[in-house]
Amino acid sequence: MTSSGLEPQQNGSDLAQQPVGIVGLGLIGGSLGLDLQARGLEVRALVHRSSTADRARERGLAQRVDTNPAVLQGCGLIVLALPLDRLLDPPLELREALPAEAVITDVGSVKQPVLERWRAWHPRFVASHPMAGTAEAGVEAGLAGLFAGRPWVATPDAGTDPAALALVRQLAECVGAQWLPCDAAAHDQAVALISHMPVLVSAALLEAADQGGQVAGAAALVRQLASSGFADTSRIGGGNPELGSLMARCNREAVLTALATYRQQLEQLEQLVQQERWDALAQRLQGTQALRPEFI
Amino acid sequence: MTSSGLEPQQNGSDLAQQPVGIVGLGLIGGSLGLDLQARGLEVRALVHRSSTADRARERGLAQRVDTNPAVLQGCGLIVLALPLDRLLDPPLELREALPAEAVITDVGSVKQPVLERWRAWHPRFVASHPMAGTAEAGVEAGLAGLFAGRPWVATPDAGTDPAALALVRQLAECVGAQWLPCDAAAHDQAVALISHMPVLVSAALLEAADQGGQVAGAAALVRQLASSGFADTSRIGGGNPELGSLMARCNREAVLTALATYRQQLEQLEQLVQQERWDALAQRLQGTQALRPEFI
Repeated sequence: MTSSGLEPQQNGSDLAQQPVGIVGLGLIGGSLGLDLQARGLEVRALVHRSSTADRARERGLAQRVDTNPAVLQGCGLIVLALPLDRLLDPPLELREALPAEAVITDVGSVKQPVLERWRAWHPRFVASHPMAGTAEAGVEAGLAGLFAGRPWVATPDAGTDPAALALVRQLAECVGAQWLPCDAAAHDQAVALISHMPVLVSAALLEAADQGGQVAGAAALVRQLASSGFADTSRIGGGNPELGSLMARCNREAVLTALATYRQQLEQLEQLVQQERWDALAQRLQGTQALRPEFI
Repeated sequence: MTSSGLEPQQNGSDLAQQPVGIVGLGLIGGSLGLDLQARGLEVRALVHRSSTADRARERGLAQRVDTNPAVLQGCGLIVLALPLDRLLDPPLELREALPAEAVITDVGSVKQPVLERWRAWHPRFVASHPMAGTAEAGVEAGLAGLFAGRPWVATPDAGTDPAALALVRQLAECVGAQWLPCDAAAHDQAVALISHMPVLVSAALLEAADQGGQVAGAAALVRQLASSGFADTSRIGGGNPELGSLMARCNREAVLTALATYRQQLEQLEQLVQQERWDALAQRLQGTQALRPEFI
């Protein structure tokens, strides 16, 4: 039993040898439960509240759902599908319930602090981040096929158990994700630039539109005239507030660095407007027009 | 003939009494030509290049298309569907070709400077702005139904000929748009906040994502990991560069004021991150989450 993660290259069947445990059945945990069961695996889930457990059973998110950490005993791989704050500050009861021989991974959107803490707590921890999502959260949010074609980042370092890493890779590929190993610091900087900082950029836009209508009639007019361009640019700034704050908190240094870079670029564009350098402004916008396809 | 715009309340048929002229057959002009013809009106169009005229005739954007301004003679209403720079600095030949008794309107996304200039040039000028668009431009861009359900702003002032205004309203409602009269300064401030300034905000985001990957591997990773949230937030910053520059140029004061408001909001959010005031940050994001439905 305990050798399940040790020869993962051998035949690719290791993931199926023991049940997979999932802690938390929100969007990521619930989606994972559905996909893994659809591929014939046994899934056992630990949730916090008994009402969540009831609903998760109704939805069939796992074969076994319990509020007792003992449900995780016998699992070869356990996925911590918890919000970042609970992941970084888990109940001792949860840590103690994790079998020492199991492979543990997470799904958090910040990797350096998670890796530091969990490596100290569990020898077979692998930091990972499936980059899939919808605007939904909670036990109703999980849906089949969420990970198909999406990147599943892992951030191994010199201390990562290679067999544990291979088992998490099997998990990612089993649900159709693209395995993407990289450095934890590079990951955290990248997500600060493309995800965490943009939440603040987008939120400030909503606040400016709300407060910037000083001319008589303009405050009502911004609301009447906002169309698809504004809807797109403001979307993530109007998203889950706890999540936005949590990301900034858990990736604070990278977010501040990204904001400083952002502010510098915006000030340069503002200067071009102030100085009426219209050709230079058009050139900068030609640059961003050419840049965008690199990201999309 | 010349009374066509003078009793517009009478029977609503004035728009049909004389041909409608369109100057420029890009996205707005071409779409207007298609919709007006579909409603049985006669449309005559003036374009700059003979190759455009050929293609416009093939597409049936107007019954008559010419590069000679004389095509506009006999039109009761003429729509200047020109880019802002050409609208603000039109060839003298065009101005001289506009019949003095015709009602003239425009479709520019900035209204104060347009109103000032054109009022001096033509007594029956009405400043207007149909707020509809796609990412396309040019003679291939026009499409039927573009204006349906969209706001059509007009910015009359004390000097606006009421009969001329009523005729432009007929035009807007004829293509299914929602008539929205307002103050020109309020309009210009509102579009700066929801459209012109956000282009720069979004462009700066692309530049920051491009340049902010300082950690080894991060520059490649931002490109691999950017997903739908970044795609939305960066969309208008990756749009038509000449248009973005032109809007900032023609609405410079309002754009600078909007940028100052924006910068202030963003700096406040940045301070909350710096000071690790996570509850306050979550509260601000709760505010923007609540705000967004007011705009969408």
